[in-house]
Amino acid sequence: MSSLVVVGSLAYDAVETPHGKVDRMLGGACTYISLSASYFTQVNIVGVVGEDFAQQDVDLLTSRGIGVEGMERVAGKSFFWSGRYSDDMNDRVTLVTDLNVFATFDPKLPAAYRQMPYLFLGNIQPELQKQVRAQMAGPKLVGGDTMNYWIADHRQSLLATIKEWNFLLINDGEARMLSGKSNLKQAAEVIMAMGPSVVIIKRGEYGALLFVRHNGSLRWFAAPGYLLDQVFDPTGAGDSFAGGFMGYLASRNLDLANADNDPRDMLRAVIYGSVMGSYCCEQFGVDRFRTLTRAEIDARFQEFQDATAF
Amino acid sequence: MSSLVVVGSLAYDAVETPHGKVDRMLGGACTYISLSASYFTQVNIVGVVGEDFAQQDVDLLTSRGIGVEGMERVAGKSFFWSGRYSDDMNDRVTLVTDLNVFATFDPKLPAAYRQMPYLFLGNIQPELQKQVRAQMAGPKLVGGDTMNYWIADHRQSLLATIKEWNFLLINDGEARMLSGKSNLKQAAEVIMAMGPSVVIIKRGEYGALLFVRHNGSLRWFAAPGYLLDQVFDPTGAGDSFAGGFMGYLASRNLDLANADNDPRDMLRAVIYGSVMGSYCCEQFGVDRFRTLTRAEIDARFQEFQDATAF
Repeated sequence: MSSLVVVGSLAYDAVETPHGKVDRMLGGACTYISLSASYFTQVNIVGVVGEDFAQQDVDLLTSRGIGVEGMERVAGKSFFWSGRYSDDMNDRVTLVTDLNVFATFDPKLPAAYRQMPYLFLGNIQPELQKQVRAQMAGPKLVGGDTMNYWIADHRQSLLATIKEWNFLLINDGEARMLSGKSNLKQAAEVIMAMGPSVVIIKRGEYGALLFVRHNGSLRWFAAPGYLLDQVFDPTGAGDSFAGGFMGYLASRNLDLANADNDPRDMLRAVIYGSVMGSYCCEQFGVDRFRTLTRAEIDARFQEFQDATAF
Repeated sequence: MSSLVVVGSLAYDAVETPHGKVDRMLGGACTYISLSASYFTQVNIVGVVGEDFAQQDVDLLTSRGIGVEGMERVAGKSFFWSGRYSDDMNDRVTLVTDLNVFATFDPKLPAAYRQMPYLFLGNIQPELQKQVRAQMAGPKLVGGDTMNYWIADHRQSLLATIKEWNFLLINDGEARMLSGKSNLKQAAEVIMAMGPSVVIIKRGEYGALLFVRHNGSLRWFAAPGYLLDQVFDPTGAGDSFAGGFMGYLASRNLDLANADNDPRDMLRAVIYGSVMGSYCCEQFGVDRFRTLTRAEIDARFQEFQDATAF
């Protein structure tokens, strides 16, 4: 069993989009990543919640086979985030960020997690990501994401952290910020020199780019953004991408140290990530994952095939 | 011989990019479209130049087999445009637009052109595009592009013009403006209802989307932008895309009325368009077309294959 460990925030969100408003819904990077990855592999989460974290939300996770042994419950309230999207959904403003119990998060991996082969580090303080990595015995594949705040104000600690990763997922603006290069191919090369041998640059509605080194030269692959009839709520789309990407690689038992890997697995993982990100946008918060089936995922994977093959 | 007629501006440009500055170089939509298309099919241009239009520039066109019988020379100066690009090349400001002889352009097609099967209408006043279309006997495929100015201030005349086109090439901002829809899939559907059965939406560095109706439902195809090591000068990239797109379709003898067409021809035309747009950016103005070979074009087409197949 290619089990995956996911670390990140478990939260409640309030969002307002042109399609409506929700005052409180399940959210957090760890939630989206694990729900999305659970369609591909067995997932186990590490995170912290407060006394207010509802049993029905725990039940949603366990209903998808997600292990919650590493979900710590402490006194206080769960992380809360609130934001509002612009009319065209391309911008959002953060209205509230209450870290609450997340402010003192000190991730400890249950013993059973430490032997697992796959680790995804959601966007939290780089020091904590590093500390989680250090608790793992010897994973086959480790990667994660980060954000502008850590790049700007915690650069040294971020560099020490991603040095130990196999891949970095990052958006285009952050890739430029981290590398100091505006050309994304050059940016990817600079980031690869920092450690990760695989760099995935997310470009929102425009899709994602994958960079890998192959026989000594840089190879790139482009996945388009899926054209939705309507973007209902983009919250969690990037994390759902991460879950689909990592979940698929785990399901394929990918091990970068093994030269026998099918190189197309990495490309397909980017497409599965894109599929999961697109489904996430169809309803508020995690709602689409309450009904989504593997058959729907594979049908959309085929749509990507039809939309790109020439 | 699947000859192509191209109508548009023949001009001189001055550009400033972060890589340097050129005070006067050959430019104009018709120039880029015809040079680019000439790698695929025989091209004939319709345009107007002034007394200052240099013989060496005519020679460049004819050296690529481009017919210049429809290039009218009149008293006065050629169209002149000057612009400056931002450091990241994503924005440009127009410094000077001197229409000169172009202000009274009254396109008349030589008799030999009127029987030709392919017509591309570069971005000029919609009334003139319509008038050129009316001079053609019965082309197999007609299309062209337009710009925000015509959409905003000449809407009725633009609508009457594109009603007679098989395809419209347009950028994303203009597609939203023309359709009134921010969702590009919805925008394409609205534009198709205006006449063209094929809509190509250009997204600059992010590539292009193709929309076609297939068995009654809307199908889409996404081509990524090519990742250049360095964008030297983006002037003419969109027109070079148009030339590659239309030139390839002409070389394939595409006739939308013929159900036996290989549907992949349209997708491959978008990729050839992307290839030509990317080469255009590698040097100032049309300079890359002075040395570009068909073998290089096909090699980059293969790179697109490798960057998208999964």
